[in-house]
Amino acid sequence: MRILGIDPGTRITGYGIIDVEGNRLRHIDNGIVSTNSKEPLPLRLQTIYSGLRKILDHYSPACMAVEQVFMAKNPRAALTLGHARGVALLAGIHSDLPISEYSALQVKSAVVGYGRADKQQVQQMVKALLNLPEVAQEDAADALAVAICHANSRTLNQAITRSGRR
Amino acid sequence: MRILGIDPGTRITGYGIIDVEGNRLRHIDNGIVSTNSKEPLPLRLQTIYSGLRKILDHYSPACMAVEQVFMAKNPRAALTLGHARGVALLAGIHSDLPISEYSALQVKSAVVGYGRADKQQVQQMVKALLNLPEVAQEDAADALAVAICHANSRTLNQAITRSGRR
Repeated sequence: MRILGIDPGTRITGYGIIDVEGNRLRHIDNGIVSTNSKEPLPLRLQTIYSGLRKILDHYSPACMAVEQVFMAKNPRAALTLGHARGVALLAGIHSDLPISEYSALQVKSAVVGYGRADKQQVQQMVKALLNLPEVAQEDAADALAVAICHANSRTLNQAITRSGRR
Repeated sequence: MRILGIDPGTRITGYGIIDVEGNRLRHIDNGIVSTNSKEPLPLRLQTIYSGLRKILDHYSPACMAVEQVFMAKNPRAALTLGHARGVALLAGIHSDLPISEYSALQVKSAVVGYGRADKQQVQQMVKALLNLPEVAQEDAADALAVAICHANSRTLNQAITRSGRR
């Protein structure tokens, strides 16, 4: 099963694509969709949306995973981030994908095994788990991390389902 | 010229359509796109987007006006609102419309002549300016208010342009 992880942002939206084969994870691609901060917000949202639609069309993932965000500090930054996140979710829906959301705690626990891990630890573990030749760009690494988290929770759900069937 | 005003929200998105003929404003339609709060956010965003696209297709406005939002209190509410606002802006861009944004101060000043007017005053003035038979639903009235604000700032810009040409 192919999973697309997304880390949305108005300036940089990271994406990461992995395949899950049994318990094995295989890295397919990662990268970013970046926007020009001098352009008006509606055009930047269109860049994010159409960039993600291209990636969705190209890689045909079976599902999409996005990090839940709860920023406690800055309402204005939260509002702006919401715009990017909204069009990213819409791109997934328009490609008929089921969308799962995970908290930062869930993502870090899944990838590093520790919910308060820092960015560098997440990046290093993403590199190790997917046998990447080098550490991925920060936002792309976060996108791969949420994809890995979704892969793990699927494996876990299957294990629970199987044990429930016994 | 036909203007579509939008007041985005994840639960209720208000819309209002007016025609501007010289200095005259004519009410065309107003209403809301509502979503089911029990549905997952991505589906609710799709409801908002497709609802607005239908309205855009039906009324073929020449431009779209949306209120700028600066909520100082609650980052989580700001994030959620950002999602709705993002897909509303995308709907406008996908219909090739120029999009203008106005602050609440600009909208209230344009409609009531007083930047700190309350909701009831805005609703009453919208009713009076557009000869509505009754006060519009709150979110639809806000959408009409931002459309009126855009109409006024256009008239003002034209007046400035004209006087500049003299």
